[in-house]
Amino acid sequence: MNIYAERIQNLRALMRSNGWDAAVISGSDPHASEYSAGRWRQVAWLSGFTGEAGDLVVTADHAGLWTDSRFFIQAGLQLEGTGVELHKTRVPGAESISEWLSGRVSTVAVDGLCQTVDSVADLEKAGFTVVDVPDMLSPLWPDRPDVPSTPVMTLSEESAGQSSYDKLTRLRKFLMLNDCDCIFISALDQIAWLLNVRGEDIEYNPYVISYLLVTQSDAMWFVKKEEGSLDPDTEDSFQELEADGISILPYHDVKPALAEFFRSEAPAVFLDFSTLNYSLYQYISESAGEENIVRGVSPVTLWKAVKNDAEIEGMREAFLEDGLAMEKFLYWLDSEVHSGRTVTEREASDKLTALRSEIPGYRGDSFANISAYGPDAALPHYSTPECGSAAILPRGLYLTDSGGQYLFGTTDITRTVPMGECSYLEKEDYTLVLKGMIALARAIFPSGTAGCQLDILARNPLWQNVRNFGHGTGHGVGFYSGVHEGPQDIRQNFNSQPILPGMVTSDEPGIYREGQHGVRHENILLCRELNENAFGSWLCFETLTLCHIDTSAIIRDLMTADEIEWLNGYNRHVFDVLSPRLDEDVTAWLRSKTRPV
Amino acid sequence: MNIYAERIQNLRALMRSNGWDAAVISGSDPHASEYSAGRWRQVAWLSGFTGEAGDLVVTADHAGLWTDSRFFIQAGLQLEGTGVELHKTRVPGAESISEWLSGRVSTVAVDGLCQTVDSVADLEKAGFTVVDVPDMLSPLWPDRPDVPSTPVMTLSEESAGQSSYDKLTRLRKFLMLNDCDCIFISALDQIAWLLNVRGEDIEYNPYVISYLLVTQSDAMWFVKKEEGSLDPDTEDSFQELEADGISILPYHDVKPALAEFFRSEAPAVFLDFSTLNYSLYQYISESAGEENIVRGVSPVTLWKAVKNDAEIEGMREAFLEDGLAMEKFLYWLDSEVHSGRTVTEREASDKLTALRSEIPGYRGDSFANISAYGPDAALPHYSTPECGSAAILPRGLYLTDSGGQYLFGTTDITRTVPMGECSYLEKEDYTLVLKGMIALARAIFPSGTAGCQLDILARNPLWQNVRNFGHGTGHGVGFYSGVHEGPQDIRQNFNSQPILPGMVTSDEPGIYREGQHGVRHENILLCRELNENAFGSWLCFETLTLCHIDTSAIIRDLMTADEIEWLNGYNRHVFDVLSPRLDEDVTAWLRSKTRPV
Repeated sequence: MNIYAERIQNLRALMRSNGWDAAVISGSDPHASEYSAGRWRQVAWLSGFTGEAGDLVVTADHAGLWTDSRFFIQAGLQLEGTGVELHKTRVPGAESISEWLSGRVSTVAVDGLCQTVDSVADLEKAGFTVVDVPDMLSPLWPDRPDVPSTPVMTLSEESAGQSSYDKLTRLRKFLMLNDCDCIFISALDQIAWLLNVRGEDIEYNPYVISYLLVTQSDAMWFVKKEEGSLDPDTEDSFQELEADGISILPYHDVKPALAEFFRSEAPAVFLDFSTLNYSLYQYISESAGEENIVRGVSPVTLWKAVKNDAEIEGMREAFLEDGLAMEKFLYWLDSEVHSGRTVTEREASDKLTALRSEIPGYRGDSFANISAYGPDAALPHYSTPECGSAAILPRGLYLTDSGGQYLFGTTDITRTVPMGECSYLEKEDYTLVLKGMIALARAIFPSGTAGCQLDILARNPLWQNVRNFGHGTGHGVGFYSGVHEGPQDIRQNFNSQPILPGMVTSDEPGIYREGQHGVRHENILLCRELNENAFGSWLCFETLTLCHIDTSAIIRDLMTADEIEWLNGYNRHVFDVLSPRLDEDVTAWLRSKTRPV
Repeated sequence: MNIYAERIQNLRALMRSNGWDAAVISGSDPHASEYSAGRWRQVAWLSGFTGEAGDLVVTADHAGLWTDSRFFIQAGLQLEGTGVELHKTRVPGAESISEWLSGRVSTVAVDGLCQTVDSVADLEKAGFTVVDVPDMLSPLWPDRPDVPSTPVMTLSEESAGQSSYDKLTRLRKFLMLNDCDCIFISALDQIAWLLNVRGEDIEYNPYVISYLLVTQSDAMWFVKKEEGSLDPDTEDSFQELEADGISILPYHDVKPALAEFFRSEAPAVFLDFSTLNYSLYQYISESAGEENIVRGVSPVTLWKAVKNDAEIEGMREAFLEDGLAMEKFLYWLDSEVHSGRTVTEREASDKLTALRSEIPGYRGDSFANISAYGPDAALPHYSTPECGSAAILPRGLYLTDSGGQYLFGTTDITRTVPMGECSYLEKEDYTLVLKGMIALARAIFPSGTAGCQLDILARNPLWQNVRNFGHGTGHGVGFYSGVHEGPQDIRQNFNSQPILPGMVTSDEPGIYREGQHGVRHENILLCRELNENAFGSWLCFETLTLCHIDTSAIIRDLMTADEIEWLNGYNRHVFDVLSPRLDEDVTAWLRSKTRPV
């Protein structure tokens, strides 16, 4: 029997003995993270599916994985032989988990630690009896990893641009204005930003797994703290934080500590149901009293998204360093492939990571490199295999989407590289996608404009040619934090959050033709104030990314004079900024690659 | 004492004797109409303000008019000496009526006939005690007009494209699917569409003031019916409707008839709170029982907006006829002004209406013509005075925004006409606005796209030059119905209604410079299916408007080749279609005006 099928059988036995009709297993962790540490990769452990987004539903006679189009192909491959069926989300006529369960079951078990309050509310609204079973899978999973604990570091006020003390003061003012005595925060990116702390508990995301309770007089940080076994860096960090008035408490003591705090104080507590896990919410609600809970959106998400001057300076440096690594990589790739050597997607990916890792302050990649040649690039979230990946040939298009985590910022960049001769359709797609990326980069818009109102700028050149892409155009990018952050985005979905000065957002239109090729161009944009006039106050974007755009696959007649001017100006700027720090051979190559069209 | 100040004093006396702290007077009628018949022009009667949108609030020591930027200047002039203060809405920091009243008063009287359920709910949510006083102003208003009653006509199935019977059958299916026994409709445009009836009870809007109750077996139409005094057309219409199973009942009997119906049947009744008036809702809720009310959005709004083939054919004919009148008007204006005669804005407006009224099937204008020269055109909703309007000189820009009601359709068109030499700024504004109008007209977009996702197409050429306009880009246009209709629109506000094939929507970007000039170009667009491919199913627009766009104020260098091609193609098409039906002199003039640029 397939190992996953066996694990699901064991779960069914557990369900039967407890009288649960269904179990809903989330791919997230107790902190509503996008990426989970090993302990919480429950969907992967049960089903073998390793994509970042997916929920598993098990009933007596069915096991199903709910995931979106980014992962259809991967899920198809990984679920083979497990008996788990793929349920497609975000497609016309898609049935949600609640809809599918409806009429089939009545009692649904969840691991409430890995479900947000909002997600359980959806199940309850649909009429199910929800049973919360924290760490539900632990009895079935003997070698389940523990909560990770990696070294904790702090960022200086100089590099973070604002002290943790000032950030907490701002938060305390917010609490006062909202008639709250305290806020309990479980989202790891918010905690990292508030306390100016970073760790390596989760791959690609420099977070410390922890909870934070902030009151007017105290900040209690619940974090893995194994007395006597702390590494020196972490000890230093903890001492520094304690000197700043942060109380460091053990992660596993969060429940009793909260109970004691709420019983003695009966304070009004601010909670964000979109990130708080259901188990802790239940616990807080019992000990603090339902009437003392103030539900709202944590203001930290927005504060964190609007970068301060130091963060912006850091991001500029990160994109400069990252751009140097990218140009060295693209030069290497060009030379190798045209020297006749066989370079695989995997080798290219490893080379790029190696070049990034030479950068002082490099802390890892910001996500798994996408390194995809030819038809492989038609999968927007292609996962380059360790073994047997395709060779990159001296023709057609190669797509690389990657990024780095640096002490001074986070990067994300996609380049589609014409490796040699390209078909007309490849060139046309390349040019149309580029026109979209340029249109968004050049946007000027009044204060108050939201991303969904700008999104069409990146799509219109494709739409005019009856083509489209199925993903969002832009996501927020953190400062030495997650490469995806809210609250803003640039996509079709209505999101009323305006794009504000200081926000950093990606600009990444694409096009994907199954079995043929894929194109995506991605630069990162910083929103800036432009000016004020009789028509209002105006914003624009500054492109942070520094890496040339290959002009060899451009169909010039499809581009307007303005677009050509932008492209030539951008490539000239890239050359001017990067070439003083590149070797002679790379500089010579880059000069030829950035020649005006 | 100013007559309006006196009327407000009388209202205050009424308020005092009843113990009301405030009275909120709506500018609408019992049918939530955009335009009201004389009986319900309560805001105008009390304050002198005649704009279409405005609410009046009277307290013991304050009288205020809440209206938006379209009417600031008009309100400023009309409220002089009345003691009524202007409260600006839709501006940054604007206080809503509820917000302003909050803390000032506790008991608020409304004429519940002229307030929607939703609007009263807003007041109640804000904590006020709302007193419903139907026809509150009648005791103070001795010569208050009666409910109007103009001849009723029916549209043939051929011209409406669908019989009233089939429309009611569709509605009855909707009711069954929604577990409702009946629907009560008070919105006049919905009734006109459902029953294929038209009247002239309201200026510019071909509606019959009435209510409609539709059950599975019956359709009860409550309409002004003065036995013995009906004109022959109305008698014929009523007979026809009765033969189709519509029961005709007196308008003023709606309450007792509803009470009897609900008492005997206890049916589940579908109500749309966004258009139902509060008084009737209260009454229905009491007689039918709160538990039998199903609240929702009437499906008729959407059905009406998606035109059928006959309606589309009618609209095409309307725009053809309307275009002929427009070209005759523009020829006349050009000739008169350049012959040296003084033509005023008012004379031009009257001439245009006279030319439209020669069209067979003309039933009136679809709104009050805007005829504005020079700085007057900087007011987007300029109201051309009867006497003393400005002279149109042979230089600068003249703006005309107008439309007609025809038996076969409704039109709306704006042209900005360069009367001779123009400044560079005038030309630049003219060209940039035109680029926006063309971009929207040329849009190709996937099924499911909403207007707010397209809006930027019409704004971007202005935004790129740090200019903007403060009104929406597009509104739905009815078929021999109101010139403004929902549910779709094209504007910045989030409205999730997708633009569907068959919808007719305006495309009217503009720019306004106080004291200088105004530019607006408006064509009407029909949404059509384009094709389906691997990227989805695609929609596009067909321009229905047939009237040339003057090229003399265009700065060619600001336009792309695609835009020039569109413009030349459009003008050639206008000439080809219209010239066979125009006199020789107009044809010769139009040939020169449509010469390619």
